[in-house]
Amino acid sequence: MSGPLNKVAILGVGLIGGSVGLVCRERGLAKEVVGWDRSEASLKTASQAGAIQWGTRNLPEAVRGAELVMLATPVGSFEGIARNLVTHLPAGAIVTDAGSVKGALVGRLERICLSRGMRFVGGHPIAGRETSGVEAASASLFQGALCVVTPTRRAEESAIVRVRRLWEAAGAEVVFMDPLLHDRLLAVVSHLPHMAAYSLVAAAQDARKRHRRLFTLTGGGFRDFTRVAASSPEMWRDICLLNGKNIIGAISAYERRLARLKRMIVREDGRGLLLEFARARSVKDAIG
Amino acid sequence: MSGPLNKVAILGVGLIGGSVGLVCRERGLAKEVVGWDRSEASLKTASQAGAIQWGTRNLPEAVRGAELVMLATPVGSFEGIARNLVTHLPAGAIVTDAGSVKGALVGRLERICLSRGMRFVGGHPIAGRETSGVEAASASLFQGALCVVTPTRRAEESAIVRVRRLWEAAGAEVVFMDPLLHDRLLAVVSHLPHMAAYSLVAAAQDARKRHRRLFTLTGGGFRDFTRVAASSPEMWRDICLLNGKNIIGAISAYERRLARLKRMIVREDGRGLLLEFARARSVKDAIG
Repeated sequence: MSGPLNKVAILGVGLIGGSVGLVCRERGLAKEVVGWDRSEASLKTASQAGAIQWGTRNLPEAVRGAELVMLATPVGSFEGIARNLVTHLPAGAIVTDAGSVKGALVGRLERICLSRGMRFVGGHPIAGRETSGVEAASASLFQGALCVVTPTRRAEESAIVRVRRLWEAAGAEVVFMDPLLHDRLLAVVSHLPHMAAYSLVAAAQDARKRHRRLFTLTGGGFRDFTRVAASSPEMWRDICLLNGKNIIGAISAYERRLARLKRMIVREDGRGLLLEFARARSVKDAIG
Repeated sequence: MSGPLNKVAILGVGLIGGSVGLVCRERGLAKEVVGWDRSEASLKTASQAGAIQWGTRNLPEAVRGAELVMLATPVGSFEGIARNLVTHLPAGAIVTDAGSVKGALVGRLERICLSRGMRFVGGHPIAGRETSGVEAASASLFQGALCVVTPTRRAEESAIVRVRRLWEAAGAEVVFMDPLLHDRLLAVVSHLPHMAAYSLVAAAQDARKRHRRLFTLTGGGFRDFTRVAASSPEMWRDICLLNGKNIIGAISAYERRLARLKRMIVREDGRGLLLEFARARSVKDAIG
């Protein structure tokens, strides 16, 4: 295994970026870990937490001489940042990311990087939390989590290995996947649940206008939804804009399931409902 | 405050019934706590856990001479059990329940009880867990929970007080509510989330037929749904059959919200999505 990198630049020092910084520093993956963020307060907190050695709001300064750049801002900002990056990075530098959308975006980011002699390998650690911000960052955030790495056919083996080792050093299990497949699957198991939660909370807010006491009666099920619906609005807006087609497909399939359930209730089909619920129950044990 | 009851009969010694038994015994609310259940194994476990002093599968034996009967079987069985009960209970005995549906069912149960000189007061402790069964029962299950008590105009004050004190002794906060309103509100904050979770898990199961690796990618959001969808199928079938109209209304309102979200995604309305998600996020803090 090769030695530590000279310089890693982390762009966006929130929950994910801050945690990557802590991993790099605690595991000795880089001699220098620099943070860039729009927010001066986040940079300060990240420095104090030891997630970065120093931070700056100046992008060229942050990335100059970096061997590896981690994009950890909201995913909608990646393309703009990548275009700004590449004029300041040394040839051969690796650009990677921790975004929740891969798909066509990976190809666009790769083209931007390759055009200037840099390399790009996309990644997505499945380790979000409802609490965002660098305050919640932790070197153990990725421990036992899955990280999907999405190299294209144009990706260089040595860059893939670097990115894989970074996530493995963080304690994640790395799986490789085609970026388009990643987006189709995540639309079902991650993006759809968030859309379902946001819509359910919105429906409850509508109902509350008629029933003042509604939210005093909330039990376990509803609270789980409010927690999911408390995820970062910026992040989920970006995911919707970048993976819209797959998300719409997933919502439509979900709507068909809801309509089917309504029909069973209308028909008072107790046997069908019991089978339906028993079948869904089994998934919890299946995914462990 | 009046002294302990001579005999309390708990019908259905699962999570809720078993926990009520533990409360009665630990707080000295009754001299004798008897359990009835279809399952010999549950009765044995409940006895061993100290939730009941003795158990029987013979309903007349269980309720004979009881001053208070707690219905804690799946809510769909209440009417049948109540009809069997009343010929064996002493006049003036209080029948209460812990079911998730009140509505018209309360009136029907009350009529059955009043016709034989018994009294009925409905209750619903909002304290379910995904783990069902007496193994998960605990005297602290209701601590800090809300319990909705739904007396009608025909309910006697002394019976209402008895039921209220039982739940307060369990550590619950008692609120009084019209049974029909209870069902309208619970349809939104409890029944809808469960229907949403069951349908989402079913949609994911459909998608898994095409994508073998799907369930390896599950993160936080999806796992919350699988936990909700692991609730008791019998219980949720009964709730659907007894509160169908309100649940259908709640699902329909939810479908309108999902359709609205889809339109925003189709239009790539980033500003609208951001507002929508930020608005939903606020509910978590509002309900604490």
